[in-house]
Amino acid sequence: MEKRNLYLHTTPVDEAKELYNKEIKKCVSVRKEEVPVQDSLGRITAEAVHAVLCSPLFNASAMDGIMVNAARTAGASEEHPLTLKRGKDFKVVDTGDPVREPYNAVIMAEDLLGVDEDTVQIIAAVSPWSHIRPIGEDIVAGEMLLPGHHRIRPVDIGVLLGGGICHVQVTARPRVGIIPTGTEMIPPGQEPGEGQIIDSNSGMFAALVQQYGGVPDVSPIVEDDYEKILAAVRRAVADNDMVIVNAGSSAGTEDYTVHVLRKLGTVLIHGVAIKPGKPVILAVVDNKPVIGLPGYPVSAYIDFETFVKPVMELFTGAAPEDHPVEEAVVSRRLVSSLKHREYVRVKLGEVDGRLIASPLVRGAAAATSLVRADGVCVIGQNLEGYEAGEKVPVELWRSREEIRHTIVSIGSHDMIMDFLADLLPDLSPGVHLSSTHVGSMAGLMALKRGEAHIAPTHLLDEETGVYNTAYLRRIFPDREMALIKGVTRIQGLMVKKGNPADIRSIRDLLRCRYANRQRGAGTRVLLDHLLKKEGIRPEQIDGYELEAATHMAAAALVKESGVDAAMGIYAAAKAMDLDFIEVGEEEYDFAIERKNLALPFIRDFIRALQSEQFRARVREAGGYGTEGIGEIIRV
Amino acid sequence: MEKRNLYLHTTPVDEAKELYNKEIKKCVSVRKEEVPVQDSLGRITAEAVHAVLCSPLFNASAMDGIMVNAARTAGASEEHPLTLKRGKDFKVVDTGDPVREPYNAVIMAEDLLGVDEDTVQIIAAVSPWSHIRPIGEDIVAGEMLLPGHHRIRPVDIGVLLGGGICHVQVTARPRVGIIPTGTEMIPPGQEPGEGQIIDSNSGMFAALVQQYGGVPDVSPIVEDDYEKILAAVRRAVADNDMVIVNAGSSAGTEDYTVHVLRKLGTVLIHGVAIKPGKPVILAVVDNKPVIGLPGYPVSAYIDFETFVKPVMELFTGAAPEDHPVEEAVVSRRLVSSLKHREYVRVKLGEVDGRLIASPLVRGAAAATSLVRADGVCVIGQNLEGYEAGEKVPVELWRSREEIRHTIVSIGSHDMIMDFLADLLPDLSPGVHLSSTHVGSMAGLMALKRGEAHIAPTHLLDEETGVYNTAYLRRIFPDREMALIKGVTRIQGLMVKKGNPADIRSIRDLLRCRYANRQRGAGTRVLLDHLLKKEGIRPEQIDGYELEAATHMAAAALVKESGVDAAMGIYAAAKAMDLDFIEVGEEEYDFAIERKNLALPFIRDFIRALQSEQFRARVREAGGYGTEGIGEIIRV
Repeated sequence: MEKRNLYLHTTPVDEAKELYNKEIKKCVSVRKEEVPVQDSLGRITAEAVHAVLCSPLFNASAMDGIMVNAARTAGASEEHPLTLKRGKDFKVVDTGDPVREPYNAVIMAEDLLGVDEDTVQIIAAVSPWSHIRPIGEDIVAGEMLLPGHHRIRPVDIGVLLGGGICHVQVTARPRVGIIPTGTEMIPPGQEPGEGQIIDSNSGMFAALVQQYGGVPDVSPIVEDDYEKILAAVRRAVADNDMVIVNAGSSAGTEDYTVHVLRKLGTVLIHGVAIKPGKPVILAVVDNKPVIGLPGYPVSAYIDFETFVKPVMELFTGAAPEDHPVEEAVVSRRLVSSLKHREYVRVKLGEVDGRLIASPLVRGAAAATSLVRADGVCVIGQNLEGYEAGEKVPVELWRSREEIRHTIVSIGSHDMIMDFLADLLPDLSPGVHLSSTHVGSMAGLMALKRGEAHIAPTHLLDEETGVYNTAYLRRIFPDREMALIKGVTRIQGLMVKKGNPADIRSIRDLLRCRYANRQRGAGTRVLLDHLLKKEGIRPEQIDGYELEAATHMAAAALVKESGVDAAMGIYAAAKAMDLDFIEVGEEEYDFAIERKNLALPFIRDFIRALQSEQFRARVREAGGYGTEGIGEIIRV
Repeated sequence: MEKRNLYLHTTPVDEAKELYNKEIKKCVSVRKEEVPVQDSLGRITAEAVHAVLCSPLFNASAMDGIMVNAARTAGASEEHPLTLKRGKDFKVVDTGDPVREPYNAVIMAEDLLGVDEDTVQIIAAVSPWSHIRPIGEDIVAGEMLLPGHHRIRPVDIGVLLGGGICHVQVTARPRVGIIPTGTEMIPPGQEPGEGQIIDSNSGMFAALVQQYGGVPDVSPIVEDDYEKILAAVRRAVADNDMVIVNAGSSAGTEDYTVHVLRKLGTVLIHGVAIKPGKPVILAVVDNKPVIGLPGYPVSAYIDFETFVKPVMELFTGAAPEDHPVEEAVVSRRLVSSLKHREYVRVKLGEVDGRLIASPLVRGAAAATSLVRADGVCVIGQNLEGYEAGEKVPVELWRSREEIRHTIVSIGSHDMIMDFLADLLPDLSPGVHLSSTHVGSMAGLMALKRGEAHIAPTHLLDEETGVYNTAYLRRIFPDREMALIKGVTRIQGLMVKKGNPADIRSIRDLLRCRYANRQRGAGTRVLLDHLLKKEGIRPEQIDGYELEAATHMAAAALVKESGVDAAMGIYAAAKAMDLDFIEVGEEEYDFAIERKNLALPFIRDFIRALQSEQFRARVREAGGYGTEGIGEIIRV
């Protein structure tokens, strides 16, 4: 076997950050630049900004009305109105007009009794400076308008311009070089060949760099070759303020990054006690920060936020901006190791007034879990995890407001959940649908624990032949429940186009390669039921242990992999252009506590189910029936 | 008098929004455009986005190690290690490498016993699909990756690229025409002449338009002339998706906007029950939204957020994004009228675990109050206000985290507070200083009510001649208090350069125009004390009722206005290039509850006071002494 870079030691996260920060601070120099105030939105002030002019610039009328000399109004009363003449006693002013001697007070238009074009009467005396905004009332020349390290907002731009400032000193945007490496990598847009992988990380890094106020400089992909990586790093360091190398930071046979960085500069840290994200490299080359990030997208993202962002903040001068943290009830037991700090992505929902965090899949390769996550639960290195039902701090990735208006669905998977998630914000602005696919049974359990508003379910009661209701009665003996009628859908065996393995019945699964669904999925329950009927044991099925999480994932295995058949819905087979052997029709409904039917967003959900837009999508997908959709069945 | 556009009627806010929204929805058409995924950060999806490719694209190794056929590993155990030969039994794989037949499982490098280059031993059998990421595990071709109305984030870009998508349909950025009007207005950068006002609103509007995803198109300033405004609106409507006219929406003699909009289209609303911001115009011209905004910056901002932003969201498809709302204790009584919904800007601080909201000045012209505000307390039209100490909902304009790390100072004004606000985030990243200037006495009262961490104060005890301590003992008889020593500073009379009015003593104020400070300000207390000593009554002083809120504002009145003298500190006179007649030296210290001295950010504050950077700034300003600065005096 070749030699691998096995880690001897991983550094705790905070220790690694502190050590690196101290080293970097010695060499990073913050560049400043002057920009027009109008172009400064979102930039960070490099120093305090002081007003050049006062505002108002002169004693100004605060009202529409007339300006007078206060002394001239003495003695006016309701009994003895005082008559004032234009030119002699007053001048008409609009709001903002200058008030000059001999005038020293303003009377509002509303307080005037009009006599003719040039004459008014007043019924009260006014004191000097009435309704006058004295010079410098809002801004005084020389006064500090903004401190340093301040992110410029639209209101700041207004005040700077009002204070006579047209140019402002801000920190220069740091240039961040991004070097994608890997012989198997291809740029987005190129057709992937056998074994090739699309470089999606560079695009994510570039966007993160922009988001945090930098300018990304993405290099062409460099193949796994020591000399080529060396040359690329050298070039990127010369051109930029800091550099990211992705990946080659791990312990694979072709991971050259750490060797290159040792050759060119100093590697301070290789390996941090963080999961995902362990194989991170923190180095300095030519007085510039160079960070090696791992290849798995979740690891890469967590490491960017943890290690790259703080370095960027040194350059931009931005205050560290963390996600808000709230306490949430964790829905499942979360076990973690004392070997690392772990970042568990979670879905969040507000159910019965409690903020509930449901952990997502934890794999470092599951990029979609980053998209689907509403937040992250950080389990400290000193903790072995949390018990189900425990209150835990969660970093919010979406606003609390958005979470509050999110329907939480946990249960069986069907493509109509995607249609609904897309339709809902359109039909009911501000309302979102978050769905987690764990299978029908697990969904009902989550509903029981108060983690979800609805649980999509398709569970056949073998005795009665009726879907869903029997299970609901059994699982919720003491609660008033309901089913929102969903769709009927056709289940069957998805097989390769043309059915080359000639599969016609469940028995034929004995002589082919199968792909199964995860435990607790209604579709797996259906398979087990059918196998039992045929007297077949699970061990007899080749591929029973291969689990796909959704109908579409199962269909993809049939289409693209060595798998011959998988159980799934007609719509998935159609979407993947597979042949389909019908097994039966089933009912896919939404279990809900009856009291929650009155929630505004549940009404929105039912309205969406019954909308013409939804029916059209379902028709297009095929294999669905929508009779009685949205009707409520009390259970 | 000329005819004015007096409002007969103002519409409640929600009614106005709803009516306008309904009308606008009929005519607004959302444009879509296709952009490269790499350039899509922050854009809003125009429709659901579906994956084109699976990820992984093939069955891929999830680990560094070797790939084997699972059947070949049967029988391996610790007692009977199984020897595997490279080429015959296994192939070396790195993470992400494809696994093809006859291989169907991966064994991690860590689980291998190396024998030689081509031979390994294993001590456990593996099952098929071990450590293999099956095709489509993360993304299945055809599956929905993002719904419509979704704001694209860096992680979304990664997933889109990974799903084989290079271009994405997003909503086009709406073009928003901005027309500044007013004969007295000049563009920023031009030297203001007599009575001229800098157009600072257009820059703020342009930044707001950008912030909410639009493209601003700012016209040159149009003078107050019906025909010219008419032509400008016509042109802007032709060129843009929507138009803002600023201002001329009020009831002044030269407010033409409403007449122009009536001529060109339909005015749906003129005047809304909102404060600040009443004179807003909601109109439609050529099927395009045209909104007239008032000229005062605070009114303009509140109306933009209330009326313009929702229209922009119709174009961009963005979900309505509101500021988070939290409950805060309001520090002072807030009276509002049933005539309108009122937006009161507040400073926020967390003191003794409570979130405290202190109202800022309420004037519509106070643009700096927008910059200084941490949030806004919205008083509904059905409410007459809130009592001091009541819990009220507050929209947060800064993050809860930032507020938590903010030192709240309420009390006397001195320029050193600006120096400290600027220095602190530099010396202690993440720590902020928020100071409100209400005068020494009011500051101590705020401290007593638990609204502030520190209260800067300079109050002379007439009997003992000692500053501050006597007041603290009197006001806090039961609490353990302390003073953090601040600076000594010279107070005196600020007079015009060259002292043309020949002012030498307090008595001379009888024959000149004076500018005073607000009630409760230590400087006003000092004046009253000196007047009393001289036997002068306040009514004898011309300008006693003219109140400046800070030393600098008082200095500005002397410098630029018809005012001859004002009491203030040497540093302000110097900054404004005024002459200065010394009256005496006083002590400007920070009152604090003793228990709060242990708070980390108070330690940071004291460190900042004692820093060389701070001393240097104070030296440069002049008129200050820093002996004993930062020392703690137990009271």
